[in-house]
Amino acid sequence: MKDFCVADLNATVSLNGFPCKPVAEVTSDDFFFDGLSKEGNTDNPFGFAVAQGNVLSFPGLNTLGISMNRVDLAPRGINAPHSHPRATESIVVIKGKVLVGFVSTSNVYFYKVLTVGQMFVIPRGLVHFQYNVGHSKASLLTAFNSQLPGAVIVSRTLFASNPPIPNQILTKTFQVDDDVINSIKSKFA
Amino acid sequence: MKDFCVADLNATVSLNGFPCKPVAEVTSDDFFFDGLSKEGNTDNPFGFAVAQGNVLSFPGLNTLGISMNRVDLAPRGINAPHSHPRATESIVVIKGKVLVGFVSTSNVYFYKVLTVGQMFVIPRGLVHFQYNVGHSKASLLTAFNSQLPGAVIVSRTLFASNPPIPNQILTKTFQVDDDVINSIKSKFA
Amino acid sequence: MKDFCVADLNATVSLNGFPCKPVAEVTSDDFFFDGLSKEGNTDNPFGFAVAQGNVLSFPGLNTLGISMNRVDLAPRGINAPHSHPRATESIVVIKGKVLVGFVSTSNVYFYKVLTVGQMFVIPRGLVHFQYNVGHSKASLLTAFNSQLPGAVIVSRTLFASNPPIPNQILTKTFQVDDDVINSIKSKFA
Amino acid sequence: MKDFCVADLNATVSLNGFPCKPVAEVTSDDFFFDGLSKEGNTDNPFGFAVAQGNVLSFPGLNTLGISMNRVDLAPRGINAPHSHPRATESIVVIKGKVLVGFVSTSNVYFYKVLTVGQMFVIPRGLVHFQYNVGHSKASLLTAFNSQLPGAVIVSRTLFASNPPIPNQILTKTFQVDDDVINSIKSKFA
Amino acid sequence: MKDFCVADLNATVSLNGFPCKPVAEVTSDDFFFDGLSKEGNTDNPFGFAVAQGNVLSFPGLNTLGISMNRVDLAPRGINAPHSHPRATESIVVIKGKVLVGFVSTSNVYFYKVLTVGQMFVIPRGLVHFQYNVGHSKASLLTAFNSQLPGAVIVSRTLFASNPPIPNQILTKTFQVDDDVINSIKSKFA
Amino acid sequence: MKDFCVADLNATVSLNGFPCKPVAEVTSDDFFFDGLSKEGNTDNPFGFAVAQGNVLSFPGLNTLGISMNRVDLAPRGINAPHSHPRATESIVVIKGKVLVGFVSTSNVYFYKVLTVGQMFVIPRGLVHFQYNVGHSKASLLTAFNSQLPGAVIVSRTLFASNPPIPNQILTKTFQVDDDVINSIKSKFA
Repeated sequence: MKDFCVADLNATVSLNGFPCKPVAEVTSDDFFFDGLSKEGNTDNPFGFAVAQGNVLSFPGLNTLGISMNRVDLAPRGINAPHSHPRATESIVVIKGKVLVGFVSTSNVYFYKVLTVGQMFVIPRGLVHFQYNVGHSKASLLTAFNSQLPGAVIVSRTLFASNPPIPNQILTKTFQVDDDVINSIKSKFA
Repeated sequence: MKDFCVADLNATVSLNGFPCKPVAEVTSDDFFFDGLSKEGNTDNPFGFAVAQGNVLSFPGLNTLGISMNRVDLAPRGINAPHSHPRATESIVVIKGKVLVGFVSTSNVYFYKVLTVGQMFVIPRGLVHFQYNVGHSKASLLTAFNSQLPGAVIVSRTLFASNPPIPNQILTKTFQVDDDVINSIKSKFA
Repeated sequence: MKDFCVADLNATVSLNGFPCKPVAEVTSDDFFFDGLSKEGNTDNPFGFAVAQGNVLSFPGLNTLGISMNRVDLAPRGINAPHSHPRATESIVVIKGKVLVGFVSTSNVYFYKVLTVGQMFVIPRGLVHFQYNVGHSKASLLTAFNSQLPGAVIVSRTLFASNPPIPNQILTKTFQVDDDVINSIKSKFA
Repeated sequence: MKDFCVADLNATVSLNGFPCKPVAEVTSDDFFFDGLSKEGNTDNPFGFAVAQGNVLSFPGLNTLGISMNRVDLAPRGINAPHSHPRATESIVVIKGKVLVGFVSTSNVYFYKVLTVGQMFVIPRGLVHFQYNVGHSKASLLTAFNSQLPGAVIVSRTLFASNPPIPNQILTKTFQVDDDVINSIKSKFA
Repeated sequence: MKDFCVADLNATVSLNGFPCKPVAEVTSDDFFFDGLSKEGNTDNPFGFAVAQGNVLSFPGLNTLGISMNRVDLAPRGINAPHSHPRATESIVVIKGKVLVGFVSTSNVYFYKVLTVGQMFVIPRGLVHFQYNVGHSKASLLTAFNSQLPGAVIVSRTLFASNPPIPNQILTKTFQVDDDVINSIKSKFA
Repeated sequence: MKDFCVADLNATVSLNGFPCKPVAEVTSDDFFFDGLSKEGNTDNPFGFAVAQGNVLSFPGLNTLGISMNRVDLAPRGINAPHSHPRATESIVVIKGKVLVGFVSTSNVYFYKVLTVGQMFVIPRGLVHFQYNVGHSKASLLTAFNSQLPGAVIVSRTLFASNPPIPNQILTKTFQVDDDVINSIKSKFA
């Protein structure tokens, strides 16, 4: 209801969203974010790095309903299947060649290999992933229609929560025995 | 913007939501649904049945932003981990003893065993499940703040989509080899 | 914009909605509510009891856009005509036989007698009621797409407000004389 | 999502809201409405007239989320207690002296006598009225944050619906006997 | 989510919108505003005055999604081209004869001369103006579907901001040289 | 309310938004857009080109609330001052060095020079511009939280509408004489 409400991340009052920094203290720098300009470190089992330009890192986005991320992927690197509970996502490839895919609630898998400058859209709340199918590093910019879209990473949600989801839930879910569940859990320990 | 807009499910125009049945043809029965009154058949590997009172089965809900389901669970039956891309869910147990749980985007697992008349809430878009921990059948009523919340069932989304998600995506995601992925896929074939 | 924001009902800051309890203090119990499991006392002139599972009694609902009530009705008991200024309502009968009805803004009365497990929907803001037409107690669960739907109970609003609405307003409204107005007012004193 | 969508009130497709007139046929007159400029006829038992500038009479308001009414009141005339299920209302008196009041869901009656140019606001969904306390005609302009706010007129809703609400509901509601209900119903026949 | 939340304009916490005054301190006067009843002073180069009934002057509007202004115009006076970033506007002429116009994003100019009681609507975010084409003073009431619609006044935005927009931006924008820009800037110094 | 609703741009029914293509005809290509991958032609007086990835060019965005544009700027090229009536905008520079600025409704000018990978946000509805301050071409990606944000280009809106805004409005607005207005109008003829 105001032009803007730059987040006061250190406020003592906790809201859904954040209180505003006093208007008199707002400067041009509050609308600026430099966290997406450098390539991330993809030296991990997933060959993956993400830099998030959401309200927690870029307080000027507070109440404005938008945010952006940068994803870097090593060759065969993956941004593992996940969903955003509060946003649609649009993707533009900045470097490399990337398979993007999502699955609808009717269980249809939609996918496409994107090269530089190409765009794809992931409807809100659906599980999707990005996978570098090229021979060199790949980078993407993603935009969300939420200041804090959140991410439910399927593998970590089921196999690495704190406390853990009991095995009986997971064996029943995947119709496998404890060995399989324990094996997967061990990868995320 | 009208009091109601009973869905014309057979309209030739497809919208996000549905066109309205002519007001002159609307009767009391359009606001009534009898699909939740009978126990579902839980004779399947998951010991699970769901009856959905959403706009597709109950056209009177169109534009009204609410829907309800009935879930029946055999002993050790599960409503497997899933998320609703477009709704918060509230749950009330009608019969039996049920473990309900969800995982936040910070990967915290919240859970509770509910008995008859007890209520639990699942924030929108988060992965959750219900599991019958009692010795007899259990039933739940769930309410959603959407006329068509949708359901992303994690296991089916990843292992039973059409067409299938390639194995290389899933082995990388769960850090397992093809055998494990193929084994799980076979359960959902 | 966050997964959840459990209401801090004792916060010194008053908002439309509530500030959040610190995330570090949130536990599974914050998403649980046990206020709907017991039958209410219907020993009153209306044969009516309601238990409300809204944000004021169940702080975990804060910002989540859903709530649920339990209504108990003695035989011939009534949940008197009222409207919810901020929500659509869906109703499922849990016990007994109940007449539910609402009136549209075009003044059409829609109604239905429901038995156990049957569902009915009341579009947002319309006047509706529930009346036990059976010979034993009846119970209903109602769901709302608001964490605090509010209730405008017609009889109390017009005849028992504080301060009272002047008689000249009410006599003109109902085209009756003071005796009738005073008589009704006396029932709600 | 477009600048505007002038309602095609004669479209064969019925929506919640209206389909748009083709853009090529839209003219300045579509954004203009002359239905509020003349005083209404208040020669009726309520001393009341309303002219509605909503999407049904002023198709250019479609999708724009605003509408305005003109209310004329004879001395002692009343715009009887009613609520708008889909809008907050603001009121400005254009002529005369008017008592405006509303009752909150906590049953508090708020009211004020307004003279020309004075403004009052009625929160969405609450029961309110306007009553001419002056010795000459009064006129008001009211604005709503909906293109079709709807109106639930309490007296007509309860006592003049089609079909009628059964007496047993109304006698129980107001704790009076059939004579009183029948008497009031007769005024609205 | 509450009936109302009268703004506490002096709260130490800054929000997008305002915290609420304690309910126990709310009185009828909180829903009343007398700032639109007097004619404004139009003795300035634009022959223009505006009185704003928004949340900053009328705290009772907080969270209610509506506000109203009064505009007074001397003969040939103008409410210069501007847009409201957060609201649709409806206009009713109270006195005089006024040209109202707006330009769509397709660059079509829609306009109309209004006399007393006539209504016009300006879709949200579009540039519009009001100009007194009569021989005497004119007055308008405008309603907005926002408690704080904001106003981007084109001339002041481009030529009188603080700090100033550099001339090279403005000469390129309007394809004129510095003299023209400096001349216009001087009128708003 | 559905996962997606790919726009049927050729539907005979006109809506605010678009009807959906039949689900059975939806393919992966509906979620893909290749219109942002090529540099635009900036050989014009403004040194400017824009490619728009909104619902009109990329029907898969329909109902999803997001869109993206690509802007190319020659050295000293400008994306002239404009506002988006229906969206906040975030900007990331892909190539070159660009001055971005906006003016708040309090008339404060906020601005920043961005280099590759840097991000800036423009609150919804505010006037803003981008200007290439480098010595080579510059490119930006912009994201919007609307499928069709619209653009009000100030210069074209005031000086090149169809039909034209009368000179008397513009001379009064900018406090200049007809010569200046006619001169600017001639640049946009």
